[in-house]
Amino acid sequence: MAKAAGKKYSIGVDYGTNSVRALVVDTADGTEIATHVVNYPSGEAGVLLDPKDPNLARQHPADYIEGFFTSVRRAVTAAKRKAGFQPENVVGIGVDTTGSTPIPVDRDGTPLALQPKFKKNLAAQAWLWKDHTGYEEAAEITAKAAKHRDRYLASCGGTYSSEWYWSKVLHCKRTAPDVFKAAYSWVELADYVPAYITGNTDPERMQRSICAAGHKALYADRWGGLPKADFLASLDKDLVPLGERYAKRAAASDQLAGHLTAAVSKKVGLPAGVPVAVGAFDAHMGAVGAGIKPGSLVKIIGTSTCDMMVAPEDADLAEIPGLCGVVPGSIIPGMVGLEAGQSAVGDIFNWFVSQLAPAKYTAKGDPHANLTRAAQKLRPGESGLMALDWNNGNRTILVDPLLTGLLVGQTLHTTAPEVYAALVEATAYGALTIINRFEEYGVQVKEVINCGGIAEKNPFVMQIYADVCNRPMKISRSAQTCALGAAIFGAIVGGVYKQVEQAQKKMTGVKPDVFRPVAARASVYKELYRVYKQLHDAFGLHGDRSGLDQVMKQLIAIRNRVRKG
Amino acid sequence: MAKAAGKKYSIGVDYGTNSVRALVVDTADGTEIATHVVNYPSGEAGVLLDPKDPNLARQHPADYIEGFFTSVRRAVTAAKRKAGFQPENVVGIGVDTTGSTPIPVDRDGTPLALQPKFKKNLAAQAWLWKDHTGYEEAAEITAKAAKHRDRYLASCGGTYSSEWYWSKVLHCKRTAPDVFKAAYSWVELADYVPAYITGNTDPERMQRSICAAGHKALYADRWGGLPKADFLASLDKDLVPLGERYAKRAAASDQLAGHLTAAVSKKVGLPAGVPVAVGAFDAHMGAVGAGIKPGSLVKIIGTSTCDMMVAPEDADLAEIPGLCGVVPGSIIPGMVGLEAGQSAVGDIFNWFVSQLAPAKYTAKGDPHANLTRAAQKLRPGESGLMALDWNNGNRTILVDPLLTGLLVGQTLHTTAPEVYAALVEATAYGALTIINRFEEYGVQVKEVINCGGIAEKNPFVMQIYADVCNRPMKISRSAQTCALGAAIFGAIVGGVYKQVEQAQKKMTGVKPDVFRPVAARASVYKELYRVYKQLHDAFGLHGDRSGLDQVMKQLIAIRNRVRKG
Repeated sequence: MAKAAGKKYSIGVDYGTNSVRALVVDTADGTEIATHVVNYPSGEAGVLLDPKDPNLARQHPADYIEGFFTSVRRAVTAAKRKAGFQPENVVGIGVDTTGSTPIPVDRDGTPLALQPKFKKNLAAQAWLWKDHTGYEEAAEITAKAAKHRDRYLASCGGTYSSEWYWSKVLHCKRTAPDVFKAAYSWVELADYVPAYITGNTDPERMQRSICAAGHKALYADRWGGLPKADFLASLDKDLVPLGERYAKRAAASDQLAGHLTAAVSKKVGLPAGVPVAVGAFDAHMGAVGAGIKPGSLVKIIGTSTCDMMVAPEDADLAEIPGLCGVVPGSIIPGMVGLEAGQSAVGDIFNWFVSQLAPAKYTAKGDPHANLTRAAQKLRPGESGLMALDWNNGNRTILVDPLLTGLLVGQTLHTTAPEVYAALVEATAYGALTIINRFEEYGVQVKEVINCGGIAEKNPFVMQIYADVCNRPMKISRSAQTCALGAAIFGAIVGGVYKQVEQAQKKMTGVKPDVFRPVAARASVYKELYRVYKQLHDAFGLHGDRSGLDQVMKQLIAIRNRVRKG
Repeated sequence: MAKAAGKKYSIGVDYGTNSVRALVVDTADGTEIATHVVNYPSGEAGVLLDPKDPNLARQHPADYIEGFFTSVRRAVTAAKRKAGFQPENVVGIGVDTTGSTPIPVDRDGTPLALQPKFKKNLAAQAWLWKDHTGYEEAAEITAKAAKHRDRYLASCGGTYSSEWYWSKVLHCKRTAPDVFKAAYSWVELADYVPAYITGNTDPERMQRSICAAGHKALYADRWGGLPKADFLASLDKDLVPLGERYAKRAAASDQLAGHLTAAVSKKVGLPAGVPVAVGAFDAHMGAVGAGIKPGSLVKIIGTSTCDMMVAPEDADLAEIPGLCGVVPGSIIPGMVGLEAGQSAVGDIFNWFVSQLAPAKYTAKGDPHANLTRAAQKLRPGESGLMALDWNNGNRTILVDPLLTGLLVGQTLHTTAPEVYAALVEATAYGALTIINRFEEYGVQVKEVINCGGIAEKNPFVMQIYADVCNRPMKISRSAQTCALGAAIFGAIVGGVYKQVEQAQKKMTGVKPDVFRPVAARASVYKELYRVYKQLHDAFGLHGDRSGLDQVMKQLIAIRNRVRKG
């Protein structure tokens, strides 16, 4: 017990799309001693939807608060059963979240959705990362930023996304002016949770994450923080005060957001005053938890993917078209964080299972496992099918939410497992397109480390990724990489480690089993990828000479008109 | 009874893809007094398949013979329960079948598949119309015919189909030489059944249908029958004897094939010697049963569609690109028969139901009805989906079996009824493309008469056809139009009528309820059709500038290579 008393633990709290997880970690070697997951109770698997608008995805902020209490309390309770753990030995807490997930808040930093008046108002909720309602605003921001002297889009691939902060805020102004007017500020979920648990919710004084600000709100030190007032005013003059109320300098996650308040401590069974790190996005902390370093691509594969790399700050990085973001300090302080991603991966497989899989595969057992069992028997190319992985738009490299899915090659004999495999392959082709883009612009990919639910549990998918990308696919040792990354930042603000790299050496690693490409399969996929790329370019590149780049957009325009009525 | 004794009946026997129907008709007014359907017992719903090759579709000839005996005997038995019917009052029999469905036969005209040696040999079976294994041979025939002085393809749209006689015969030579060698002749199912039941199976002496010969075997009076020996030899010298053994002149269905043999009569409960008309294809006799006349497009909508028109023989008909056939006498003697079609319609809906419809729609009741109930609530354009109706290739206007299905516009919320509706709409766009092609080449479509299972039973589909085509859709009065058409030819060879038009006036008609286009729906579909046409041209037209015309073909080439091993 004497030895155990010397142990130091940190807690990582990871807010995903459907649930929040708390993880208690031994800072000495990364051993995960207890965890607890809470599913958000609201909406459909935690997401508030609008049947009239497939672009809308919101969440109820109360789910975040209650989720923190329950997940941390239960994780701590579970940890207490392990020899040596005592709540007093928790040295720090880190928090990661989805994003851009901005929340409209009042002057005190309380989410409007917690006021009775706005409780049921969809616009007053948290605007989840995958909400694409602001696609028209995104296009406008892209157009105006392209002309601005500060070249705001240079570091985010040349296109501002409908998933991001200003698109959502501006869309709220135009479609829900009452909510917009009542909002004193808009706070990213990654900022809100650390602020709330440390009692620092004042929007003008809370720490704002460099990760959230830099990747989603056009923040950069080189133009002095958020975009200048003239630019915000060119979108809407009422955005200017929102800019003024935002922190002048955003912070990296090795910085302190504050200390756990007495009230929150009591709810979760920890001592008051535990240091809490500045928040960051799940993928960024997940990359840290997976052991990211220069040359390593970390893929976090879940409902969507994030594809993360880091490069030395002095690397001569060209602007990379289509990359969501190139932000100093967003992953590892002192390095440039590079973020790419696919808007839907697991979400596409789940969509297929819930909407189109026949009873044969859904009646008994796990439908994914049943479909996989049949799909595993198929050789590459055998089905004659090819899909585009755009059911939720394309984040990298096309940065276009108005793209949709495509399936081609169906005969009268095409089966559900064949379609399922084609959808998996499509996401693998999308993954390869991202790797190629990194390398085309001088960022070499020397290894690929995968993490997230699919990497962890789905050898079928990972083998296809290895074959399609023709590279070994490593799997992060931790099954909770994002929460582990958050716990690493908890260990840093708790004083156990000074630098992320030090902590990573002790606390992270990859599994011994690696998925390696099979030459015969890789060679067929190489051929198939050419077909994918042809479809990708024809339907995805603006100004494609066939004119097919307008097909998906025309269908969406007609759909939106008809749905409106 | 005295009056009844004067009644005259004819029998139409209709060989479909999955079953054979016998129909007993009162020749005075077309009243259908008894019918019986026999499902073919072999294979999957009567079709012999090869899991390694989705292009293959064969049938066992014994199913045809047994099907004749059972369907006619039972229909006659049922008719005997009606006042006035006596077997002695049956004046004639007409037969229609699918096609091109050629059967390899021996010197006596007996199908090779009835010999023990060949019983299980897929190549020795009937090669069902939708067998596409001969697609490479079709391309070769197209290329060689294009250069021949006789311009053999001028009347069949410029492209010879893999569904047709010579593609299949040549493919057999190349892939199953033992069967080819054993075959003294290849006989269309439409010729085989009348030949068999009248005891005239000698391949050199049996009547050959002008409909089958003209539409599928490149027969035309203007070059003296089948293609000349030099052309057949350019494909394969062993085709030359097959040409020589074929009838010098093919016959229309107002001609006599022979008289029912004593043996067959006994099996079916009819007197010996009943006149039997020369056979024709189901769609052609169906068009007659639906009341076809110049200006009327008869659509026979079932697993596939046939789109039939007639024009006066002296009409100045330009050659119509993509039309399957322009053949004098193939529908109504003395007029030119025009045939177009879609390779899969009901087959696509059935494919979706059997492979991709979730339990919600298949667990209870008829899945088509369940999906239709949900799909009917959708407004045109509401789903944002668009499909191409090419799961079984495209017959008209692209004449290309190497095309496949396509679905675009999927989001993460796309539902099964939305996909189902998109597939129905795709077939409607395909139907409109055919109507447009007729009219572009001077064949005006003044009315559309629909028949077949889908027209009969599916108001959801018919309303979409009316809206997409922006034309009223009439429905043939008879639910068994093909069998009724066959019975009309039975009445003609039985001497009740001299001409088809006379018989049609008495025996055919349309239902009083007509599906009329709804302006608001038609206007959205007009917009959507432009998108369909863009995809249609990009993926379907050779030499499309985007290069996408090769996508489906590349996928098929890879698929075939992988499947072969």
